[in-house]
Amino acid sequence: MPTVTEASSPQSTQSGNARICRGCWDQMHMPIPIRGPLALPFRAFGITRSKMNPNICTICERSFRYVKKQSHVAASATILFADIRGFTHLSERIERVRLSEIVSLFQDRCAQAIWAHDGIVNKTMGDGLMAIFNFPIIRKDHAQAAIMAALDIQRLCAAALGSLDLDDLGDQPLGVGVGIHSGDVEIGEFSSFRSDFTAIGGTVNLASRLESQAEAGEILVSPETAAQAGALAAGAATRLLSLKGIDQPVEARVLVKRD
Amino acid sequence: MPTVTEASSPQSTQSGNARICRGCWDQMHMPIPIRGPLALPFRAFGITRSKMNPNICTICERSFRYVKKQSHVAASATILFADIRGFTHLSERIERVRLSEIVSLFQDRCAQAIWAHDGIVNKTMGDGLMAIFNFPIIRKDHAQAAIMAALDIQRLCAAALGSLDLDDLGDQPLGVGVGIHSGDVEIGEFSSFRSDFTAIGGTVNLASRLESQAEAGEILVSPETAAQAGALAAGAATRLLSLKGIDQPVEARVLVKRD
Repeated sequence: MPTVTEASSPQSTQSGNARICRGCWDQMHMPIPIRGPLALPFRAFGITRSKMNPNICTICERSFRYVKKQSHVAASATILFADIRGFTHLSERIERVRLSEIVSLFQDRCAQAIWAHDGIVNKTMGDGLMAIFNFPIIRKDHAQAAIMAALDIQRLCAAALGSLDLDDLGDQPLGVGVGIHSGDVEIGEFSSFRSDFTAIGGTVNLASRLESQAEAGEILVSPETAAQAGALAAGAATRLLSLKGIDQPVEARVLVKRD
Repeated sequence: MPTVTEASSPQSTQSGNARICRGCWDQMHMPIPIRGPLALPFRAFGITRSKMNPNICTICERSFRYVKKQSHVAASATILFADIRGFTHLSERIERVRLSEIVSLFQDRCAQAIWAHDGIVNKTMGDGLMAIFNFPIIRKDHAQAAIMAALDIQRLCAAALGSLDLDDLGDQPLGVGVGIHSGDVEIGEFSSFRSDFTAIGGTVNLASRLESQAEAGEILVSPETAAQAGALAAGAATRLLSLKGIDQPVEARVLVKRD
């Protein structure tokens, strides 16, 4: 099975410490200061750096309706799901305090990888998370950005989880599974009572289903994402998967981190 | 199979429109105003009603460390997962704008049911969500509260989803599956970069696994929750389930809404 090393995006250097919100700039061409002295008056009005990505502001996330003047919009995006394989098994065996360390390591390393490639950590769910690429920060190469983030996730999590002393784990390896799919999604707020900014649609569900089939260390990429990602997915092994709720089998590309 | 009707909790009348944050009161005996004129100065400092439950404030959620003086604590709780069965199938077939209507209906009806029984909507994930009972609002009868919320979820969602014109749905019924389990959890913030208040532990994972096995209209309740819930789960059918990552088969109780 071919392996792919972590690559650095030509665009990812943009993502250091942006002075203005990159989401508001990409979506509205509005310069909203998020770092430095100019950010202070905005902070007084509750506009701060988003927890989904420190290079966007809370307008992108909490005031989506204001940005888009509607509650949701169609967008082309790449969706990434990741979670810890073997976590349920582990959660039956080790102390909850140690579980919390593992969850912290996982969440922090994933966020680092996703932010480095301009994605947002949209949802966290204990030992899992969902990221969106190409919204609100626009990246034309969002399929590649997501794959590079996934490779970074695998590399960073392997190092972090490997450093833990988990004798109590037994024969079940602890690792991360990732699923990625690109396509049209509906992005916005889908609740009348909370500004719950997210993406929905078949694209999201297929990415989630792919992730559920990924073994520890694997990145399962849909044919659509692979086609957009060029060299990054070229030559990868394929695996034909029957996924719950999806009529046709999906020929996923299987990427693995380099040991 | 016995059916259970929605019951009203003797405590749920407390949950109308609390003047002070019920979480801060139960956890710290601190009266934090969340409604009325006394709430205004607090609002100026960003302390408002939480989107997880309008009877608690954002201190409970965003400043958990301040409340508990540590990043996480052990607690006894009941965890409820719910999601829309057939949603992936549906998401391949209907317009995303219509999907968003379904997600909105689901999220709103679930929140209404969970809040009525003093739970918090801790996580939403498109067509799914996770709720916590007994934290931060203390309910000694949290197992019962969660089951009553689940019965309300089934009743409210059946009415809402049934009113939709879904001819394009074909042979797959649209309904909600619920899983409930009670036990010790670790509650707190498990990320160094965001105040991501949630519960983790084996209890959470088992509740999630139960939900994944629930058919449309079903509520799968763990033996532990059933034992605490008394009459609410008495006489329910049982179903022996082998759950991924769980060593021993689980004898779930199967509750269904009354048509």
